[in-house]
Amino acid sequence: MKLLKVDTLEVGIEKLYKAYSEAGTVLEMETISLVKALGRVLAEDVVSNEAVPGFNRSVVDGYAVKALETAGSSDSMPVFLQVVGEVEMGKEPPCTVESGQCMYVPTGGMIPEGADAVAMVEHCQPFGTDQMAIYSPLSYGKNMVFAGDDVALGQKVLDAGKVITPADMGLLASLGKTQVSVYKPWKVYIISTGDEVVEPNENTKLGQVRDVNTYGLIGEVERLGFEVCGFELIKDDYDVLKTRAEAAKETCDIVLISGGSSKGKKDATAQVIEDITGEVLTHGLAVKPGKPTILSFDQESETIYAGLPGHPVAALLLFRLVIGGLWQRLCGTEDVTKMVPLKGKMAVNLAASPGRKTFQLVKIDGEWVTPILGKSGLIRTMSEADGYIVLDVNDEGINKGEEIEVYLL
Amino acid sequence: MKLLKVDTLEVGIEKLYKAYSEAGTVLEMETISLVKALGRVLAEDVVSNEAVPGFNRSVVDGYAVKALETAGSSDSMPVFLQVVGEVEMGKEPPCTVESGQCMYVPTGGMIPEGADAVAMVEHCQPFGTDQMAIYSPLSYGKNMVFAGDDVALGQKVLDAGKVITPADMGLLASLGKTQVSVYKPWKVYIISTGDEVVEPNENTKLGQVRDVNTYGLIGEVERLGFEVCGFELIKDDYDVLKTRAEAAKETCDIVLISGGSSKGKKDATAQVIEDITGEVLTHGLAVKPGKPTILSFDQESETIYAGLPGHPVAALLLFRLVIGGLWQRLCGTEDVTKMVPLKGKMAVNLAASPGRKTFQLVKIDGEWVTPILGKSGLIRTMSEADGYIVLDVNDEGINKGEEIEVYLL
Repeated sequence: MKLLKVDTLEVGIEKLYKAYSEAGTVLEMETISLVKALGRVLAEDVVSNEAVPGFNRSVVDGYAVKALETAGSSDSMPVFLQVVGEVEMGKEPPCTVESGQCMYVPTGGMIPEGADAVAMVEHCQPFGTDQMAIYSPLSYGKNMVFAGDDVALGQKVLDAGKVITPADMGLLASLGKTQVSVYKPWKVYIISTGDEVVEPNENTKLGQVRDVNTYGLIGEVERLGFEVCGFELIKDDYDVLKTRAEAAKETCDIVLISGGSSKGKKDATAQVIEDITGEVLTHGLAVKPGKPTILSFDQESETIYAGLPGHPVAALLLFRLVIGGLWQRLCGTEDVTKMVPLKGKMAVNLAASPGRKTFQLVKIDGEWVTPILGKSGLIRTMSEADGYIVLDVNDEGINKGEEIEVYLL
Repeated sequence: MKLLKVDTLEVGIEKLYKAYSEAGTVLEMETISLVKALGRVLAEDVVSNEAVPGFNRSVVDGYAVKALETAGSSDSMPVFLQVVGEVEMGKEPPCTVESGQCMYVPTGGMIPEGADAVAMVEHCQPFGTDQMAIYSPLSYGKNMVFAGDDVALGQKVLDAGKVITPADMGLLASLGKTQVSVYKPWKVYIISTGDEVVEPNENTKLGQVRDVNTYGLIGEVERLGFEVCGFELIKDDYDVLKTRAEAAKETCDIVLISGGSSKGKKDATAQVIEDITGEVLTHGLAVKPGKPTILSFDQESETIYAGLPGHPVAALLLFRLVIGGLWQRLCGTEDVTKMVPLKGKMAVNLAASPGRKTFQLVKIDGEWVTPILGKSGLIRTMSEADGYIVLDVNDEGINKGEEIEVYLL
C-alpha cells in the first residue's frame, strides 16, 4: 500500500496556484453587455470618464437661492426673493440667479448658476406677483449635490475582481458603461465514478446507489458562476476513465473526477490523473471530511484536474474550498458573503480531529449553533446545514457556549 | 398638495399580500429538470419513495464481521476469522457471513447478511491461506451505515418553500427525483421615468442623467430569481406612461415604475397606477430611504404595480424589501442568508430618524460596522456597501461600540 503524504488545504491550493501561474496560464476575459453582468467578476478596474452628476443638482422640490441671502430668516421673519423663472427637468436653467433672486427647481433638476442651496417648497410662500418668502436659513450646498459628488472625473469606482452586484450595475449605467470586461467563467467537466453508482433516473438494485455527486457538483459549479460543459457517469475502469478524462481537456478548464480516490482496490483516479498530467501535485489533504482529494494541473492543455472524494458532502465542500478558493485568488475576488462569517454560540461541546482541519456542518437557530453530527457521506446532512464551522489543526475542540464563527453554505 | 398618509413597511407588504390572496391569486408552479433547479423554490414537499441507502453499506475498506466476535481482540491478541469471499462494488455479496467468518467489503460496498460491523483493513492481517487476524474490537454498526440511515422510506426530506441548494440537488438525485416541482419566477416589467433621464449609451447634456434604476433593478430582479420580461425608459408623460404600464400587465406579474413618485409637479405615477388598478393600496412608506413608494394590485389581470422612488438606492432597497418580502411570504421561503444577520459593533455614533424605520447602508471591516453616510440618491454608496442595518421607528440611535445586526446586501 502506497503511503500518502497529505498536504494542508492552504498548501494544496498554493501548489495548484503555482503550477497554474508558472505555466503562464491566465484567466480569459470577455466583454459582455451590462444587462448580463450580475454575478460576473470584473476583469479590469472601472474608471469614470466623467463626473456624476455632471451638474449641480437639487435633491428636493424648491427654490434655488444664494445661501448667504437666507441668513437670519425665520418663521416670523422671512427673506423675500424675486422668482426669475423655473428649471425644467433635464434642461439647463433659463438664466442665472443674481443677488436677491431665486428660481424654482424640481427634485433632480439642475441648479442655476449663481445659486448654491435650495429652499424646500415647504419653507416657501408666494408673495405678490413675483416674490417668494423664504422662512428658513440655508447653509451652503443645502438640499443639493454638486457636480462630481457621486463620482469624480477619473475616479476609480470599481476594482478588478469585484463580483458585480445590482448596485454596481446601476453605477456602471450612470457612467455610460454599457459593456463590461469580465473574466470568462471556467468550463467544468464532471465525471462520477463507481461500479456501484447508477444514473438518478434508474432503479437501484441491491448494492447500487444513485449518482449524487454529479448533481451536487452541477449546483456548486453554477453557484460559483462557472459553466458545466458536460457530465457523465463512468464505471471503475482505468481505460475508459483515462480516455474520457483526457478528452475533456480539449474543451474544458477543469475536470472533476469524484469517487475512486480512497485507498480501495479499484482506485484508478490517481493513476489516470498522473498519466494525463505527468504529475500529481497533491495526493490527500489534511482536512475532514475530504482527505482523499487529488490535485493536478496539465500544463500542455492548461487544465486543472481534481479528484474529489466519493462522499458527497466531502466532494461538494472540497470543490468549493479548493476550486472556489483558487478562482477567488486568481480573480482577486473579495466575496464578503463568504469571507465574513456569522458569529454564534455553540449549543453543545464538540471535539476536534487532531492533525486535520475540520469542517463541521452546522444548523443555526438564532444565536445558537448546533453541529449536524452524522456519518460522513450522508448528503442529507449537507442539505439540512445552514453553514459550517472550522476547527483548525491544533484546536482541541469547542465548549458549549463558546463563541464560534459560522460560514454560510 | 395632497397629504400622504404613509404605511409602515410591514403594513405595506401585508396590504399587498391580502389583496393578492383575496383575489384568489396563487403562485404558478412548473416542473423542471433537476439539473436546472439551483436557486429555484420548491413548490411541494419532497417525500422519499424509498430508503437511502437501500442496503447496509460499508464506509471503509475492510472486513465485514459479526461485531460480537471481535470482543477482546487487541494488538497483541487478534481474533482469527475465515475469509469467505469478497463483495464487489454494486453487487450483492456472494454469500452470508456465518459465525467465525468475515468477508472483504470495499468502501461503499454492500454488507453481507450476518455481518454488523466492518474492521478497517489497517486493523487486519492475512494469516495462513484463508484466515484474517482482526486486531481491534468493534461495536455494533461500526464503520457502516444501515439501510435507511440517510433517508427513511416515506420521510419528508425537503419542505415546500425551500430554495434549492447544490446539496439539495444531490439529495434529490439520491432519491431518483430527476424532475422537480418549483414555483414559476415572477415576470417583471421595469419602467424608469423622468424627463431628465437618458439611456446609458447616450451622452448626457447639462441637466440630464443616465438611467440608473433600470439596470440596478434588472440586477435585483435576477438576484431574487425573477425574470425581466422587458424594460424601457419613459418621459414624464401621463398618457404614454399609462399606455405602456397598462400594456405590460398582459404579459407580466409585476410592473415596476421608478421615479415620479415624489410630490413634485410631474408626478404621474400614482395617478397612472390608480387609473389602471382602481385603487392605490399604499401611498408612501414610513421608511428611510424609500418614503415615496406606491403599492397596488390589479385584480383583473393579477398584476402587482409598484411605484418605486426615483433615488436608485431607495428603489433597489424597496424592491428587495417589498417585492422580495412578498415573494418569500407567498413561497414560505426561509432564506437563511438574508434572515440571519451578521453581528458587528458600530464604529461611530449614529442618530436615527424619528418616526421612520431607517435602513442604513454600512461597510464591514472585521467586527466593525461603519455607516456609509452620503446624500441619498448616490448609487456609489450602495455599490460600496456590504450590507445594511435597521433602526426601528422608536430607536433613538446607536452608540459607538454597541452591538448591531447587519443584513448582507
